[in-house]
Amino acid sequence: MNQVRVGIAGFGTVGRATVEIISTHRELIAQRSGVRLEVSVVCRRSGVRKEDTPPGSRSVSDWRQLVAANDVDVIVETMGGTREARELLLASLKQGKPVVTANKNLLAEHGDELLALAASHNLPIGFEASVAGGIPILRVIHESTAGDRLRAVQGILNGTANYILTQMERLGIELDQALAEAQKAGYAEADPSFDIDGLDARDKLCILARMAFGGRLNVSRIPTCGIRHVRAVDIHSANRLDSTIRLVGLAEQTDKGLEVSVRPWLVSRRSMLAKVEGVNNAIFLVGDKLGTQMFYGRGAGGDATGAAVVSDLIEIARDLSAGRLRAKKVSGFLDPSELEICENPRPVSWYLRLTVKDQKGIVARVAQVIANRDINIDSLEQEPHLPKDRVSFVITVEPVSEPVIRDAVEAINAFDFMVEPVLVLRIE
Amino acid sequence: MNQVRVGIAGFGTVGRATVEIISTHRELIAQRSGVRLEVSVVCRRSGVRKEDTPPGSRSVSDWRQLVAANDVDVIVETMGGTREARELLLASLKQGKPVVTANKNLLAEHGDELLALAASHNLPIGFEASVAGGIPILRVIHESTAGDRLRAVQGILNGTANYILTQMERLGIELDQALAEAQKAGYAEADPSFDIDGLDARDKLCILARMAFGGRLNVSRIPTCGIRHVRAVDIHSANRLDSTIRLVGLAEQTDKGLEVSVRPWLVSRRSMLAKVEGVNNAIFLVGDKLGTQMFYGRGAGGDATGAAVVSDLIEIARDLSAGRLRAKKVSGFLDPSELEICENPRPVSWYLRLTVKDQKGIVARVAQVIANRDINIDSLEQEPHLPKDRVSFVITVEPVSEPVIRDAVEAINAFDFMVEPVLVLRIE
Repeated sequence: MNQVRVGIAGFGTVGRATVEIISTHRELIAQRSGVRLEVSVVCRRSGVRKEDTPPGSRSVSDWRQLVAANDVDVIVETMGGTREARELLLASLKQGKPVVTANKNLLAEHGDELLALAASHNLPIGFEASVAGGIPILRVIHESTAGDRLRAVQGILNGTANYILTQMERLGIELDQALAEAQKAGYAEADPSFDIDGLDARDKLCILARMAFGGRLNVSRIPTCGIRHVRAVDIHSANRLDSTIRLVGLAEQTDKGLEVSVRPWLVSRRSMLAKVEGVNNAIFLVGDKLGTQMFYGRGAGGDATGAAVVSDLIEIARDLSAGRLRAKKVSGFLDPSELEICENPRPVSWYLRLTVKDQKGIVARVAQVIANRDINIDSLEQEPHLPKDRVSFVITVEPVSEPVIRDAVEAINAFDFMVEPVLVLRIE
Repeated sequence: MNQVRVGIAGFGTVGRATVEIISTHRELIAQRSGVRLEVSVVCRRSGVRKEDTPPGSRSVSDWRQLVAANDVDVIVETMGGTREARELLLASLKQGKPVVTANKNLLAEHGDELLALAASHNLPIGFEASVAGGIPILRVIHESTAGDRLRAVQGILNGTANYILTQMERLGIELDQALAEAQKAGYAEADPSFDIDGLDARDKLCILARMAFGGRLNVSRIPTCGIRHVRAVDIHSANRLDSTIRLVGLAEQTDKGLEVSVRPWLVSRRSMLAKVEGVNNAIFLVGDKLGTQMFYGRGAGGDATGAAVVSDLIEIARDLSAGRLRAKKVSGFLDPSELEICENPRPVSWYLRLTVKDQKGIVARVAQVIANRDINIDSLEQEPHLPKDRVSFVITVEPVSEPVIRDAVEAINAFDFMVEPVLVLRIE
């Protein structure tokens, strides 16, 4: 049986889980795939303690040693960050070594450069683990798009934000409390911005959109709004509307180009999106022939992400030992054309939550702004018994296009009675 | 660009959809996969009319001509049935031609023989389309099981039965009406037994279980009960229990072996299974590391099934044109050990619906049968104002194991006041 030696760069949650899965399932993997995976070297800048070093492997503290090592056939990058991770991947490929990474940030920012270099060396980069943890969504898209034309990719891409929204819903707490709790449970980082401001979801959506539709897409061009400004009152209002709130990434082909955004949505309780709770992810694909498909599972965590890393490793190891290692044709990243993006061209319904210092005539003035733009109000509710300096009210409106609602929201935000900007949710 | 010539055996819904997809997406497929698919020959026993023959291809009426044809590189079997389909596959493989099939019945009954022959000729058989239409569940299992140990596969595997249950629920109609409607809409065959007696779901579960757990499993050993005896009163009672009814296939590893069954379940409205409506399918995988994943999409229909056929065709065509065609290691079918199957060893809750000729003391006698076996009744309801010769009542019981409930049901069925056997639903 062919043995393939793996070097692991970065020894945090995902790195350790990867080592653990390879060790626990070594026989199963050998039996099923015909290759024997061995972790030969682990690398961590601050060093790996002797008792933490996996049996049969050695540790180094500089990733350059890992890249240069004669006893490493394939490299797993789980360091995180983009600067050093990028250097590691470039060096590995130049050294002729295929790489597996779980780093969505790296792919979203430097995917073009890395995959072009991989293609020129005819080496694969495995990055299934970079999106949606253990859900094999990139493989599915790769295969779906081979024979069908995809129209839309949509989903809940960030488990931490979804966990926070679910907890707010279950416990009736504010975002700060739910966030603190998520941090205590290990689901959120000390700096939560990446998750709650939608940046993590944006990186993943960027990768998904490129895989699905083919072409370049600068991640900074994706309009992104996280859940930072969602309050308990919104969850409460959503509930009254038989709905809940989810952070949704959407990329959809329209007549005018690709509509792409990350933002919180108001979704019906009856929808599948609402059923996605806790740290889970769900991704919908819509294809011409395949119709709507949905893929659901744990979106993060060492085990699920590690399992995705191992699935990439097995594919590479099989090809390596059969002497037919080659760059995977990842058309979305090698196509030099730019994806043309556009605003949502179709009218949709919207949820607006205003927080105001109470005074006479507010409702009339807001209603006038809305009426002036030919927007129909669908529902309006002001919570009773709130302190006068901070009154929330919620308006839902019938379908209008995004520029129209934005114009109305800008006008409302300009009123002096507004305590904070309007929270805008797209209604499913 | 390499051209791969496809011969289609059987020119019904799936065969036509396959031709249509290849023709519509020829450029897309060429661009994405680097191969050009051409349908060179179509075969139908009763002949293909000139105007139906795809441009650039010819038609034959005997599949032996298709197998022997010099201008066919790969064969698609969409004839259905098992006798001739089996002969076609055997002949194609012996001729050195890889095959793609959507025929679950064929795979469930003759999978061992066919895949063994394919392995001995080092040729692939693509059968992704045989289970769950366009959902690439076999690929996902193949990859998941390479690096993780699966514990359970569960799902809604028959779109027709699910459509009938959904229509009964929406319209409050009886199964006969819903079935007639499904037949009119083209979702059910004239002989509906395959769908409503669970046989189609059983074949698919057999393939899934073998792929997931590896080993032989004779399809006739899977305890199977369809939806034929589900009535409007059951849907109504389910609704009262905030639930609905779904036909579920389950294969789960337990301490005692593999629990495997196809039967109707009572599932909570809040569950994901309940959200699967109409002709859709959904499959849950539970893995040690991957946790619970769910894959959802159109389970049948020419387009979805045709798209799955084309995805297999593309994979084979790529390998063929790169000169590295080989048998796919489908461990579940090549492992000669027998899967050890067992009854559900854990206590679960049950729903029993009795239909009786009304007389005094029925409830007391039934309750005594249940009490004698130490089973606790959770709820009991008798619909008011029913005709005396046909009264339904519904009992739900707290968790007990399957042999215990079966023993109770047998005793109840023996009473002379029973109009028909008890309908038993497993509660999720």
